[in-house]
Amino acid sequence: MGKISPFAPAQLPDMPVIEGVRLATAAAGIRYPGRIDLLLALFDPGTSVAGVLTRSKTASAPVDWCRAHLAHGMARALVVNSGNSNAFTGKRGRDAVKRTAQAAAEAADCLEADIYIASTGVIGEPLDAGKIATRLGQLAREARPDAYEDAARAIMTTDTYPKLATRTAEIDGVPVAINGIAKGSGMIAPDMATMLAFVFTDAAIEPEVLRASLDPAVDNTFNAITVDGDASTSDTLLVFATGRAVARGAPRIVHADDLRLAGFRLALAEVMHDLALQIVKDGEGLTKFVTVKVTGAETKAAARAIAKSIANSPLVKTAIAGEDPNWGRIVAAVGKAGEAADRDRLAIWFGDILVAKDGEVAPGYREQDGAAYMRLPEIAVTVDAGVGKESATIWTCDLTKDYIAINADYRS
Amino acid sequence: MGKISPFAPAQLPDMPVIEGVRLATAAAGIRYPGRIDLLLALFDPGTSVAGVLTRSKTASAPVDWCRAHLAHGMARALVVNSGNSNAFTGKRGRDAVKRTAQAAAEAADCLEADIYIASTGVIGEPLDAGKIATRLGQLAREARPDAYEDAARAIMTTDTYPKLATRTAEIDGVPVAINGIAKGSGMIAPDMATMLAFVFTDAAIEPEVLRASLDPAVDNTFNAITVDGDASTSDTLLVFATGRAVARGAPRIVHADDLRLAGFRLALAEVMHDLALQIVKDGEGLTKFVTVKVTGAETKAAARAIAKSIANSPLVKTAIAGEDPNWGRIVAAVGKAGEAADRDRLAIWFGDILVAKDGEVAPGYREQDGAAYMRLPEIAVTVDAGVGKESATIWTCDLTKDYIAINADYRS
Repeated sequence: MGKISPFAPAQLPDMPVIEGVRLATAAAGIRYPGRIDLLLALFDPGTSVAGVLTRSKTASAPVDWCRAHLAHGMARALVVNSGNSNAFTGKRGRDAVKRTAQAAAEAADCLEADIYIASTGVIGEPLDAGKIATRLGQLAREARPDAYEDAARAIMTTDTYPKLATRTAEIDGVPVAINGIAKGSGMIAPDMATMLAFVFTDAAIEPEVLRASLDPAVDNTFNAITVDGDASTSDTLLVFATGRAVARGAPRIVHADDLRLAGFRLALAEVMHDLALQIVKDGEGLTKFVTVKVTGAETKAAARAIAKSIANSPLVKTAIAGEDPNWGRIVAAVGKAGEAADRDRLAIWFGDILVAKDGEVAPGYREQDGAAYMRLPEIAVTVDAGVGKESATIWTCDLTKDYIAINADYRS
Repeated sequence: MGKISPFAPAQLPDMPVIEGVRLATAAAGIRYPGRIDLLLALFDPGTSVAGVLTRSKTASAPVDWCRAHLAHGMARALVVNSGNSNAFTGKRGRDAVKRTAQAAAEAADCLEADIYIASTGVIGEPLDAGKIATRLGQLAREARPDAYEDAARAIMTTDTYPKLATRTAEIDGVPVAINGIAKGSGMIAPDMATMLAFVFTDAAIEPEVLRASLDPAVDNTFNAITVDGDASTSDTLLVFATGRAVARGAPRIVHADDLRLAGFRLALAEVMHDLALQIVKDGEGLTKFVTVKVTGAETKAAARAIAKSIANSPLVKTAIAGEDPNWGRIVAAVGKAGEAADRDRLAIWFGDILVAKDGEVAPGYREQDGAAYMRLPEIAVTVDAGVGKESATIWTCDLTKDYIAINADYRS
């Protein structure tokens, strides 16, 4: 799929083994022959799971399946395929999920209700579950604890690099590990439907506690990135906690307000933040990584809405692609957000350069300084809305001719 | 500004004279020397005015001026400049508007409160009102009733053709004329801030009645088009009714429910519709004109929100640019709209071709038929949401590499 992102990491992180997690991948020929496109993750008995799923009204069949089974919160296996999202596939799509779950339950020797499924790829084409089901027995036998890079590659579609992150935390003095993998390339390709992230830990955390740890972190990570504002039918984040750290003395956390969870929560948020930024940095056709921060808003939601309005504005994004310090487009994006902002107290910075204040261009601002700043690969835009004390940050990328080329020429 | 839109009209309409309206234009050197960039329209005493202005929170100084003066609803002159939008210019911007109004009032021999002002062009640069004020006396002397094409050209920025429309209607058997001019190129260039439309008629209609005729028409015309979803700081629609048709026996309409206004309302809506589609058809970099119709929605607002979600989706727009019948992206855009839609009853058509129904690809659909349809210059996408009886239509265009080139390279 063309050029590798300029923000691709120079080297992939060393991923530790997570006790209770084993992984295997295969080339199942789902869309392209010979491409690794199937991942099976096996979890030891007693593994908790929590998740966040797309709010799309046209959610895929696997999303429906996960939503139904997250309620009980226990997991024994995860099956992910790329190449076909099994979205908008009607009854055949539901049957494909059912068949996959049956085969996975047999391979993992567990209940179907303990199987989680995610699919990413083309929308609207029937998924041949036979290609998946017939491989799962073999994959279960091959699964091993150190295959995270393979796993990250198996779920790629238009991604130009595999996305991996890892952190450790202590719970009551006992170290636990957190590994994550994700795929994009952003919310940007719903026909390659789209954002998937899976996190694994050996901490022992009850499902509802895991869920309570997830929500605040999602707001400031996966829900704070945008490539082109297009949300997908398949967005899925699942966190699996095997509980195997108990054997090393870690406590089992059963209350969401247990203070011993503070360090774990921080590390979990860091893994999610790391993966989220990797997704933006692999945005289709990008040349710039952009941080949009809004301060001085009335509410957190208003700050976020203004930041998203800026981050999703095609005109702001094309100006950044053109290295044009076109702050007028930022003013317009603030204006159209529909949130309270005081035009006559608005201030704008590019990095540390004060561009506008009190509703007009700043006295000391020189266009050549803005232009020089815009030539940097990482751009920070800060806007003070001038009406309150709340702030929010959104991460995004520029909008280039390559984005159009990738998306106009993809299927044809 | 590059290529002329493939949808530019082969010839401009013949614009009749509107009694009570005189027009003059000049090259005032506001941004580029030698370019016609200033329009003065003079109205006979007794002219009513009604308008719709941007809801942007960062509205321009001229928008603030018009909003304040529309309350009394009478007009004697309109001053429009291109090249500088006088938006985000603080106190200097307000002073520039005041100075323009003073000079126009002197030139037109009227009150400042009867002056309407609109500016389009770069945001954030101080507007030198002297360039305007010193020309208005001369323009008032030169003004003539047949200068509509010049007027339409004077307000162009990135537009590739002037936008003119005319219709006639009868009020109580007496013919009245309606002329309109507009500029774009869409809501698409807020730094060339942006949509302006002015309509002139010799009908005799009280301001509040004029306003009541305007609102429903705006919903289905200027508010039903989108090029890139970016609204501007300067969007302005003003309708001037000179009342001079009274001399030919037309009644003065003073009640909004006067049935004699039916034909006029229809013709006014047609002029606005004509201008609105001309704006879309001059969308920056477009190669396709796209009609998105949503049926089967729960409410009119929901139908509109779903249609806008499709029309503003960069992925749908790039697929159309690539002549790719990628209906999966339409499914995703419906899903992310957040409005009620029944995934398993959703139906999609390209023109008359049924692409998907009951939540999956339609049995008889052949990709080659969709691909052939996509090669047409005008594309109709229809979606039935499967949950109700309401519908809405939005007009838009595709998103091409030329859009990026125009907007990434504009100022630099």
